[in-house]
Amino acid sequence: MSLNPKRTVSELKELRALTSDENGAQRVAWTDTWLKTREWFASRIKDLPVEQHYDAAGNNWVTLPGTSEKALLIGGHLDSVPNGGWLDGSLNVLAGLEVLRRIATDFSGRPPITIRLVDWADEEGARFGRSLLGSSAFAGTHSIAADRVRTDRDGVKLEDALRRCGVEIAKFPDAQKERKNAAAYLELHIEQGPVLERMGLPLGVVLGTKGVERHIINFHGQEAHSGSTPMNARHDALAAAAKLALEIRTIAKKYEDAVCTIGSVKTFPGIVTAVVGRCEVTLDQRDLDARVLAQMYREAQEASQRFAAEERCTVDWSRLWSIEPIPFHSHLLDLCEEATREISGNSHRMPSGPLHDAAEVSRAGIPTVMMFVQSLNGISHNKIEDTKEEHLEMSVAALDRLASKTMAWIQK
Amino acid sequence: MSLNPKRTVSELKELRALTSDENGAQRVAWTDTWLKTREWFASRIKDLPVEQHYDAAGNNWVTLPGTSEKALLIGGHLDSVPNGGWLDGSLNVLAGLEVLRRIATDFSGRPPITIRLVDWADEEGARFGRSLLGSSAFAGTHSIAADRVRTDRDGVKLEDALRRCGVEIAKFPDAQKERKNAAAYLELHIEQGPVLERMGLPLGVVLGTKGVERHIINFHGQEAHSGSTPMNARHDALAAAAKLALEIRTIAKKYEDAVCTIGSVKTFPGIVTAVVGRCEVTLDQRDLDARVLAQMYREAQEASQRFAAEERCTVDWSRLWSIEPIPFHSHLLDLCEEATREISGNSHRMPSGPLHDAAEVSRAGIPTVMMFVQSLNGISHNKIEDTKEEHLEMSVAALDRLASKTMAWIQK
Repeated sequence: MSLNPKRTVSELKELRALTSDENGAQRVAWTDTWLKTREWFASRIKDLPVEQHYDAAGNNWVTLPGTSEKALLIGGHLDSVPNGGWLDGSLNVLAGLEVLRRIATDFSGRPPITIRLVDWADEEGARFGRSLLGSSAFAGTHSIAADRVRTDRDGVKLEDALRRCGVEIAKFPDAQKERKNAAAYLELHIEQGPVLERMGLPLGVVLGTKGVERHIINFHGQEAHSGSTPMNARHDALAAAAKLALEIRTIAKKYEDAVCTIGSVKTFPGIVTAVVGRCEVTLDQRDLDARVLAQMYREAQEASQRFAAEERCTVDWSRLWSIEPIPFHSHLLDLCEEATREISGNSHRMPSGPLHDAAEVSRAGIPTVMMFVQSLNGISHNKIEDTKEEHLEMSVAALDRLASKTMAWIQK
Repeated sequence: MSLNPKRTVSELKELRALTSDENGAQRVAWTDTWLKTREWFASRIKDLPVEQHYDAAGNNWVTLPGTSEKALLIGGHLDSVPNGGWLDGSLNVLAGLEVLRRIATDFSGRPPITIRLVDWADEEGARFGRSLLGSSAFAGTHSIAADRVRTDRDGVKLEDALRRCGVEIAKFPDAQKERKNAAAYLELHIEQGPVLERMGLPLGVVLGTKGVERHIINFHGQEAHSGSTPMNARHDALAAAAKLALEIRTIAKKYEDAVCTIGSVKTFPGIVTAVVGRCEVTLDQRDLDARVLAQMYREAQEASQRFAAEERCTVDWSRLWSIEPIPFHSHLLDLCEEATREISGNSHRMPSGPLHDAAEVSRAGIPTVMMFVQSLNGISHNKIEDTKEEHLEMSVAALDRLASKTMAWIQK
């Protein structure tokens, strides 16, 4: 059985039909639709010469044992955001499955090294606001205390939702056992951005995942009646926030590839007849260079202080989350470049703005690389998320090529 | 019984104790606390030689019949916003009550003209988003069709909430009967702004209520992943809105006394990891000069188009509500100036940014004027709303003086 990228596209469509509604994919981790997804996936592997088990964090491991215990890991995630797309996460798992099939055939069920396909549990964090849950357990970067008490919007606790799926959060550390013998990790993903499409390229080599500074910023002014408060008597928290919303763009544009985003603005009391007394915004800053990230963070803080003072407001910052930049493995980058060039005729190296499970695997010290395939219109986390089928097929072929090169490198 | 302004302060405190909790006044119209407020008010008038009834819109009329049927109207509203202050609305009603008592005594229960105290129903519109409800029924400017289907945040329909209080919205037009013989209307109110305090003046003469243009403005960009979307590939709806939030201040400052406010900003999807795809803001513009108001509206529209184009977004406007400027009666302005000058030694004429029931009464063609008393820190619609007691007492005395002058004018 040779590699059949068209089968991957066909399986992606089958999964979409099974797990989507009129608003898009509904494979949110720890829900019934996600469990149904995993049942469907089990049916896909039942005739392969593999061992399958769920680890202590709910990650699904499909292992094709090789002559050597040294293992090549290929991973993705079948979970989606609510109203999500058909490719984010699933492409990786199903392309990996196709590669696994090809290797099992080529080596008559016994490759020289072990091949392990992993479906990470809850990459998106859509329900409990904690992304990379399964892969962080694998990497040992996870904090049980911080996460067990998270609740979804209905008040269900994370630990209870996991228990319903047979996962005990107290046992998460056991997932680290899966790191044993892991020699390399490969992940294919849609770009989720417009860069490759703008450059006319189907495939990209991912340099690493950008570091992220994520904060909530509150400007405190004075709520006042919109009709009775003269303009010069106001302490308008929105004005300070609006200045910051514009300034972060100036900050980001100083640095190539850096991004700064205010994604949420909340106004209090937030009514048509009141000057805004408090304005809460979220700030998300990303860059692959830790020094640039630190500098952008400082510049945004200074700007917020300046704008608060200009508007006779005060400001406070609270860190939501941060992660350092995670550069991928330099030799695997070279192999990924070779593979994409052989399949598509060209190559482009780029950072990943979004985080991926690959970041956690890399933090665990396992040589890691990712490959991107072009997204149409740069849109993801949405039912209109799409990629040309010819590009999907090329990405499966390129991942397969990369897997062969990486196997050879591991054997050396 | 001579005028006793201290009693007004004492009654205001009694009402506060009866109808507030730790978050402030809770006299929201059509609620149990509001009905309790009205019961308490009924107990205040039971020994006066007056006739009392509720009109078809739930306005409470207390009439001291005079020799002439020509009537001087004095009004306010006992309803408050949720978590409101102790003075907004109530001061007017209780100061009016004190004036009524004094007149009843002075003329042994039979003044030369009729005096009518009115407690307007639902001035604030806090529960159903429709302010000046009772006074607009009185004025005949009310649209039953537009309002009967309004719902509160629990989904209760306005017409059902009114019915529970014995008011049938279909009968609203009958409230116009109360206009019969109305010769003048007086309303005292806290300023709800910082102007008089800044000038060191206890009392002000209100020129009229500013016209208002109130709109919802939607900027439409493109939701995109905050990590994967380069700065120069964005269609950031928040950026366009932020520019407008700053520009409306420049527009307002061109015109003396004009105000422009963005009180609410909503971001969609409004999450930390997404560039804002749609940003909805409210705009409130006010001025006493209709030409200035129209010009500010045009300038804001043009600016929004310009900013949308700069950010590769689109914009649409939808009018929430508007009202023309309502100047008060020029002779009553002179009488109000005399009254405030006699009591406080000085006087200041100023527009009212907030709307008041007086605006509706004036629209009905009844000569109208309002008097302001200083607010501390310009704060209203909040439990910390306050006015010095000496100023409250002066305001009762000045309203009484104005009532006497207006009675004399009506008799002419």
